[in-house]
Formats: sequence, C-alpha cells, structure tokens
Amino acid sequence: MILNFSEEELYKINHSAEHIFAQAVKELYGDKVVLAVAHITERGFSNDARWSIELTEDMLTQIEKKMHEIIKADLEITAQEVTFEQAMEMFKDNPFKQEWIKEHTEAGKTLTIYWTGDQYYDLCKGPHVSRTSEIGAFKLLSISGAYWRGDEKNEMLTRVHGTAWPTKEALSKYLEMLEEAKKRDHKKIMKEQDLIVFSELVGSGLPLWTPRGAVIRRELERFIVDEEIKRGYQHVYTPDIANLELYRKSGHYPYYKDSMYAPITIDDEEYMLRPMTCPHHFQLYLSRPRSYKELPMRIAELAKLYRYEKSGELTGLIRVRSFCLADAHIVTMREKAEQEIENALELIEYICHLFGLKPNEDYSYRLSLGDRQDDKKYYKDDESWDYAENVLRNVLKKRVVKSVEAQNEAAFYGPKIDIQMRNVNGKEDTAFTVQYDFVMPKRFGLKFINQDGNEEEAVVIHRSSVGAIERTIAFLIERFNGSFPLWLHPEQVAIIPVSDKVLGYAIEIKNRILEKIPNARIELMDESEKIQKKIRNAQLKKIPYMLILGEKERLNQTVNVRLRTEEVLGEMQVDSFIDRLGEKIKSKSLEL
Amino acid sequence: MILNFSEEELYKINHSAEHIFAQAVKELYGDKVVLAVAHITERGFSNDARWSIELTEDMLTQIEKKMHEIIKADLEITAQEVTFEQAMEMFKDNPFKQEWIKEHTEAGKTLTIYWTGDQYYDLCKGPHVSRTSEIGAFKLLSISGAYWRGDEKNEMLTRVHGTAWPTKEALSKYLEMLEEAKKRDHKKIMKEQDLIVFSELVGSGLPLWTPRGAVIRRELERFIVDEEIKRGYQHVYTPDIANLELYRKSGHYPYYKDSMYAPITIDDEEYMLRPMTCPHHFQLYLSRPRSYKELPMRIAELAKLYRYEKSGELTGLIRVRSFCLADAHIVTMREKAEQEIENALELIEYICHLFGLKPNEDYSYRLSLGDRQDDKKYYKDDESWDYAENVLRNVLKKRVVKSVEAQNEAAFYGPKIDIQMRNVNGKEDTAFTVQYDFVMPKRFGLKFINQDGNEEEAVVIHRSSVGAIERTIAFLIERFNGSFPLWLHPEQVAIIPVSDKVLGYAIEIKNRILEKIPNARIELMDESEKIQKKIRNAQLKKIPYMLILGEKERLNQTVNVRLRTEEVLGEMQVDSFIDRLGEKIKSKSLEL
Repeated sequence: MILNFSEEELYKINHSAEHIFAQAVKELYGDKVVLAVAHITERGFSNDARWSIELTEDMLTQIEKKMHEIIKADLEITAQEVTFEQAMEMFKDNPFKQEWIKEHTEAGKTLTIYWTGDQYYDLCKGPHVSRTSEIGAFKLLSISGAYWRGDEKNEMLTRVHGTAWPTKEALSKYLEMLEEAKKRDHKKIMKEQDLIVFSELVGSGLPLWTPRGAVIRRELERFIVDEEIKRGYQHVYTPDIANLELYRKSGHYPYYKDSMYAPITIDDEEYMLRPMTCPHHFQLYLSRPRSYKELPMRIAELAKLYRYEKSGELTGLIRVRSFCLADAHIVTMREKAEQEIENALELIEYICHLFGLKPNEDYSYRLSLGDRQDDKKYYKDDESWDYAENVLRNVLKKRVVKSVEAQNEAAFYGPKIDIQMRNVNGKEDTAFTVQYDFVMPKRFGLKFINQDGNEEEAVVIHRSSVGAIERTIAFLIERFNGSFPLWLHPEQVAIIPVSDKVLGYAIEIKNRILEKIPNARIELMDESEKIQKKIRNAQLKKIPYMLILGEKERLNQTVNVRLRTEEVLGEMQVDSFIDRLGEKIKSKSLEL
Repeated sequence: MILNFSEEELYKINHSAEHIFAQAVKELYGDKVVLAVAHITERGFSNDARWSIELTEDMLTQIEKKMHEIIKADLEITAQEVTFEQAMEMFKDNPFKQEWIKEHTEAGKTLTIYWTGDQYYDLCKGPHVSRTSEIGAFKLLSISGAYWRGDEKNEMLTRVHGTAWPTKEALSKYLEMLEEAKKRDHKKIMKEQDLIVFSELVGSGLPLWTPRGAVIRRELERFIVDEEIKRGYQHVYTPDIANLELYRKSGHYPYYKDSMYAPITIDDEEYMLRPMTCPHHFQLYLSRPRSYKELPMRIAELAKLYRYEKSGELTGLIRVRSFCLADAHIVTMREKAEQEIENALELIEYICHLFGLKPNEDYSYRLSLGDRQDDKKYYKDDESWDYAENVLRNVLKKRVVKSVEAQNEAAFYGPKIDIQMRNVNGKEDTAFTVQYDFVMPKRFGLKFINQDGNEEEAVVIHRSSVGAIERTIAFLIERFNGSFPLWLHPEQVAIIPVSDKVLGYAIEIKNRILEKIPNARIELMDESEKIQKKIRNAQLKKIPYMLILGEKERLNQTVNVRLRTEEVLGEMQVDSFIDRLGEKIKSKSLEL
C-alpha cells in the first residue's frame, strides 16, 4: 500500500497515464516524435522517444492540457492480440518498436497492442485501467536524456518523467514527499555538511571522508564492533586482496566474475580486489583443527569490498565501487543454526530500534527462496534446502516483525532472510541479509571434531549487522536530514562565549566536560564574530547542544543551553548539563 | 659500537674470517667446491659456493678445525692490484669470479686481490685485518641455499653462515643474543600465540589476523586515533585505490613505479593499489578553498598501503605486501612548520615511552639530507632545502634524544628526520619518519588565503606516529616476548574457578568487573579441567592477571590474584582488584 492505494492499482494508473502522454504527444507533434519505450512503476512513468524538435518545459504544459482532454473524453482502453505481420505493419515507421516486435516474436511471445479509444494504440503487455477517466490526477515532472536500452553506445533519447494518482489529494501528497526527499537527498546534504567528497583524480565511485564525515563513520564502526564483541563475535582483519585461486575454490568466481575488477598480476600470480569476505574467513577457520567447544565461531570483520558498477550507475554513497561491510560468518553445527540466526536478527532489530526504525512500518523481513528446478543457479541438494528453509521459517514465526516469501531470490548456496527497508522516498530496498549456507562448508571442508570425537561438517551463516557503512550512512543522512543522533554527530556541543571577556570561562567549561567525558566532541566558537552569527554557524552544522556563555553564566557558574531543535533549555548547573550529556551519549538516545 | 667494539673493526674481522673459511674449504675439498660470492656485516659473514659434494654439519667441524690452524699460523693479509688479464688467469676455473671481473672492468673499476699468506688469494675490495691472528673467536652457524646473485632464475648455491669476534667473550655473548632472538622471533611467537596466520590460497605476504591478534591491532589503532585527535589531528578515510593519474600528478609514479603493483583496468581507466596516502589527503584538502584559520590542518588516517616485495623477501609481519600505516599530512604555513615537527616528535617520544623504550638506548634520531648536486634524485630548490634543513636542525637541537646526520637519505621532496630503532637483535632500522615537503604543495597547488587576504603556498609535513601497524606489532611481539602490556593483551584477566561449586561466584566476579570496565577482556576458564591445567593454560596465553576462586574466596567475597610473572598478590578485596585493573588499563602501565 502506498498512500492507502494498492500497488496494483497505482501501477495500472501510471501505465495508462503513460499511454495518454504518448497519445497527446503524437496528436500535438505527429512525425516529429518517434516513441521508443516506457518505464512504469507504482509511483510514476517515463517515456523515452526520439524528438526531432527541442522539447521545452512550456511544451510540457501543452501536453498536460491535451492529456486532460483525453482523460475527460473518458475513452475505453482495450487489448488486441496481433500477428507479427500485423504488428510490423502497424509500427512500420517506428524502428524501436520493430526491434521489440522481432525480439518478442523470436522469444515465442504473443504480441498485444492496447487501444485508447479507437485512434491511438501502442505495443504493450498491460495491465491498464478500463477507462481514461480513472486517472484522478497526474503531473509531468522532468525532461532528461536516456540511452536507447540503457546502453551508452546507443542513441540518446529524450525522457519525460511523470506521475499519476487516483485522486488530486494523493498527487499533491506525493509531490510534497518528492520535494522533501529532494531536500533530504544525501548527495546534497553530504556536500552542504562537508561529510564526504569525491575527486575526479582519485576516481568515480570512490568516496573520500572529510574529518566531519569520518567522525560519523568511526563512531558507527566502533559501536558495531563493540556491540558484536559483546554478543560473542570475534573480530578479525583479513586482506582486501587475494589470489584468484581463492575465489575459484569458493566457486564465487564464475558467478561473480562480472562484479569483480580485473586481476592484478604479481610475480605471475593473479590477485583480485575482494568482492566478498567469506573465503577469507574460512581460511582463518582452517588455520587449525577446530573442536565443537569452539563452535559456534562467529568471525566478524569490517571488510572493505570491491564490486564493479558502471560509471553511469554510480550514485553518491548508495552505489560505489568500494565499500565497507560489517560482515560476519558464523560457523556452527547444524543444530545451533536456528539460535544463531535468531541472535543475528535480534542484533539487527536492536540496531533498527537505535535509529528509531519501527518494525513493519520502516522495515520487514523477506524469506528469499531458491528455485529447486534451476540447478544452474542454485546448488542441488534438496534435503539441505528443505532443512534450511524450515529453520528460517521457524525463526521468522517467532519474530514480531512480519515477513513475506519471495521465489528465486536466494543465494546460490542456500536460502536467506532479507531485511527490507523503506527510504525517505518510501522505496523498499534490501538493507541487510542473513543467509544459510550448506555449500561453502563442503567446498572448503569446514569441519569440526564433535562430542563423539568424530569429524562433522559445519554450516555457515553469512550475515551483516549495520550493512555497508556507505549505504547505511547515506540512509541515516536522509532519515535524520543531517541532524545525526547525538552519539554520531560530528560535534556534540558548541560552546559560544558572548564576548572575549568570558573566553576563559568558556575554556574552563570545555575542560570540565572533557574531564568527565574524554571523547566528547566540543567546538569552542572563539572567533571574534557577533553572537547571532555564531549561533547561526552552530545551527548550520546542526550541532545538538549550544552553550551560550555570558557574564551572568560566569558569575552563576552555569551554562545556558539551547538545542538544535530551537528549543531553549535555559540556564543549567554545569554538572547537571554534563551528566545529561554523558547519559544521552552513553544511551545512544535520539532525544537531546 | 656493538658489544663495545667498533663497527669498522667487526666488519674487518668478519671479512677476514670469510677469507679464512674459503681457504680452509679449498685446502680440504679442492676442486669439489667453486667459490662464488661472500656477504659481510659487522655481525657475521656468509659464503655462497657451488658444492659438488654434499656439505654436512660434520664437515663444518672439520672446516672450523682447519680455520683455527690458519688463524694460529698468524698469516699476513695483503692487497695486490691486478690487471684484467692477470685476474682472468688467476680465476680461470671460476665462472662466478670471472663474471665479477668482467663487470668490474666494464664499470672502469680497479681490480684488487687479497692474499692470506702466500698460498691463498681472493678477488676482494677489502678492508681486512693485518694478520689472521687478530680474529679472536669465530663460529660457523648454519648451512642453507641461496640463488646466485639473489635471482631465483639462477643456479642455487650452498650458503654457509658464520660470525667472528675479537674475543671469545664477545662471541659467546653474541651467540646468547642470537639464541634469545630466535626464541623471541615474532614469526615463532605469532604462531604459538595464535595471533597472525598466513594462507597460501590468500597469498604470500598478506597476513590474516586471528581474533587474538586482532585485539592487539584494534587496541593499538584506537589508541593512536584517539591520541592523535586529542593532539589536534583530523582523522579521515580515503580510498585504497586511485586512478593512476593521481600518482602521475604527484610525481610518485616514475619514482615508485617498481614498488607499485600492476594497474587494474576499470572502464578503460587504470587504477592502482595505493603505495602512499599523500595525494589522497591533498585531494581532501583541495575539496574547498582554505583559510589561514584552518591551518595547520593535520590530516591523519590509518591507511592501507600496498608496496611490491619479492616473494623471496617476504618475512613474517616485517616485510609484507599490504600494510596499514598510521599516516598523517600536516598542511601548514612555513612559519609554523617547526612547531608542528616538534609536536610530531613529541608524540613519537610519548609512544616510545609508553612501550618502555629509552631515548638513545633504544632509539635515536637521524637527519636525512639530500644531495644538492643530484637533481635527478632530489627536487632542485636550494633555498627551500636550506630553509627545511635549518628547521629540522633547530628542532633536533631542542630534543634530549641524540641525532646523527646522514647524506643522501632524504625523500625527493625534502629532508627528513628518521627515528632509528634497535630490535632484539640489536639491529638498527628506521621505524618512523617526519618529512619536510616543499614539492607537493607546488605540484598540487596546496594554497591558503593568508591574513592579508592573499593566496599563499603551504608546506607539508609527512609523518607517522606508530608507523606501520604490522611492523610495529612484530617489534612489540619480540620486545615483550608475547607478554603484551595489559592494555594490549588479548585477554586481561583469567578467572579460574577451583571447582564447579564456585562457578556461580566466578560468573558474578566477571560481571562485577564488566560493570565497572565494560570493555575488559576476561576469560572465564569454566571447562572441567584440573586447576593446575587451567593455570598452565592461562600462563601459556600469558594472561596478565589470574584470579583463582575457591570456597574460601567465595565466603570472604575476595579474589586470589596471581600475575603472569609468577608473582602471587594473594587474596584481595574484589573492588580493590577492579580499581587496580581499571587504573592500570587506563594509564597503559607496563607494570601489572
């Protein structure tokens, strides 16, 4: 459900709105436009076409007017099956559609066209609303460029993006959301707040963390390492490159080849930037014989990984070429797998709770299954798949977080639980996963001596806790709009002396805080600026606490506290403030 | 000075001892041995030769006996210049020596031979002692293999290693040192203590840190990051790979090419595993205009670096292919460079002090200068070299740590201070450096707006604090013989219940410690073993504190404390022990 409408309904409305857009364009501009392809989601549509005239914003208004006429005319939308010859004839002036027609026919698919009234038709597999009047409201949003079939070697087309909804209220609500999301775009905020920069000379998709951004990352990393250790994980460090043979042995190489970078030749051997951590951790496991007493062995690492992304698809911190994953591999006896998976989900739920994410509302679970028939994509071992699926279903039954099942979304080595997260756009994405693996233990011979003194094969659980640091911080930037929780924010306290006369007192306050909270991040705003300017600067940096210090505070030995939320706490005893600050940092509170 | 003898004297003694070894071999085995090459240091000599018979340990005794005879004969050692033809004739049966003779002659060098008495001679450039009797004592140490000229494509020769000293006392003292160093070899201890492992599948020179080793590394890394932040450094994260263009721009590429790995091609661009951090930090500096108010800007990072090492030269943690450097680049106005370098040395001295390293005894400074005439190796700018050398000399004058000056040891971009450290072998090596750089600011345009509102060029100080984590930990392993300081040791407290009856009390004690010291590393030895076995296990792991808990301790609500040094502190109040533990961890004390 999005804004109380079903996904199916919204998809149909946007699909039909796209047809109406195309019809309006053809009625207005005729042969000057050759329609190529449309993309439809529940939230919008886009139309790619070859325009022989320049498409301007003004023209969009004209097109919208024409679309309103078509909607008002309440035309019926109907499907018709056609033969290859009929289709080729109907689209004889359109090389793009002819390309589709040929491909569909070669793939043995049926060809359908959809009519809007009896004047306009398009090649399309549906579904649509029955009548144009069912589109309650729509808006054309933007003009951009797009390559035919997404390939930069092809012709550049003109893309118009729009959105359609059942009611005017829903449209305006959605436009508001879009506006807010634009403001919260992490790429915008990370620049404004000086958190992360990119350098053309260093390379695309390779973020550089400024001192401010690095604070957030370091705090998040230390938190997760400490939290995991507390929960029985053993953190390790393994190399970011490895001999190609390692990935051949793990079986990743053929599957992941296209996601990996070209090998680096060292003394006639080929080394790879690692795309995953598992085989590295298995080598540590294998460094000596293991007993059941050591299991479950939870090997964890903040691991730098490298996966290929096309330069055109690199997006801020969301799609990068190198990222740091809070990764772990739990080597366990089969009987303990269920408990370990439960513990992994509990950790994830705890982290979500820390960031104020609500189960079912902000995140939910997805059980991703393999296709038993497809033994090219999935390792063949029905008994193990059954066992593993059963374990995961048992775990999910006990959680309060809801789950759905998805076919054909498993890893090649077993089924998994995906933690699906909604971002500020309301878009759902897989944030973390917990995977059950019965294949790697065979490939690598991950065994242990069991209580009876016999060798036994282990199973492996692959899991992440805070996911990829880069993506998670992008998510946090957008969620908190740059006002990070106190424990993560680059600065925690701004000390603002009203004049140079109280500078000594300001330094004294700083030292008193540091004495009790040695790692507190304090900015002493001692530059010779007007007080209002200093407050404004602290607000721009979204510093959680501002301590305004004047003659009165010095005499009273107090601090005057303002929050970044504009709330004024007023005069406080220094020690009460320090206690409050210490407690809020320690508890990782979202409140100030 | 080594064991109170000068390096020059020891070099000559070892050099002459090698000639005597070769003479003895020829007298005993004649044509069965073709001598190839010798290597001489102040501490020993080695001789590489082609042996057509197998050389056994027993034969070494025979050779030693013959050597004693030659020494006793008190032969004179004399030099003689020879022509190319004479030399070729004198070594007509020796292809190795002939190769040397040709090369020397082509390089326009004079050929010298050294006679021992009037029977034996060798091609050699000296220097030697005057008479064989000056060799007070010697010992042949080992037999191994070595490639001719160190190249694995060449013939494998037999290497005999020995050591010679002016007195018998010095020899036996040195042999003791060798024995001790062998015991403390970090490669041995890191295996015994399960700290670091290597995997053939991952690749040579790429260490994998086990959970125990990772604790030490993590504690060291967090310590240095926090300490540097306290001292005004700004820690960042930058990518471990970058476009080759970045290193072309920095000018590193031609100089460092041979130390860098082969490029990785991504979308027609070439990316490199970074061999250094500086250009990455400069890109961060350049991400926006800078004012004098922001300077000195101390950009620091725990940076993973990759430098090529031949597989034959990889040694434990000392020579690896990937390492993590506690690196920083201070961008400053020229006038503040001196103070910044002083501060950098102060931090280094503080760290040395923490590990109990004594100035002058364990470490000293070396001012490494450039050769002004060599403008291929050093950037030409006499005024800047003068200024920088002057700054470094001023800094060194003020320190209590002594320094020497070394010619032709500077970086290409300016002079530097090397911190020279002695390892357990008494061998001196550069542990850290502080470098003055006036070249990179020009290449990258590192400028700032000065107080007058004008653009001004900055200077850069490159420095390390704890150096490369891998090397430093290898050093610490050897220095502390695996018994790391409390704050670094993988486990800090072993809780040893005498029987299952006191297991509840043991858990209670563990929780009480964790309540006050949340990150304390405690091993509860709850396995059903005999008490002596548990103590032995704790001692093998060199756990600093052992708390033995029996019925008496439970009733008295106390703990019985033993140290890993075998010292017994006896019964203590729980809170006194926790206070002591907390205080010793916090102060990073070397005492328990």
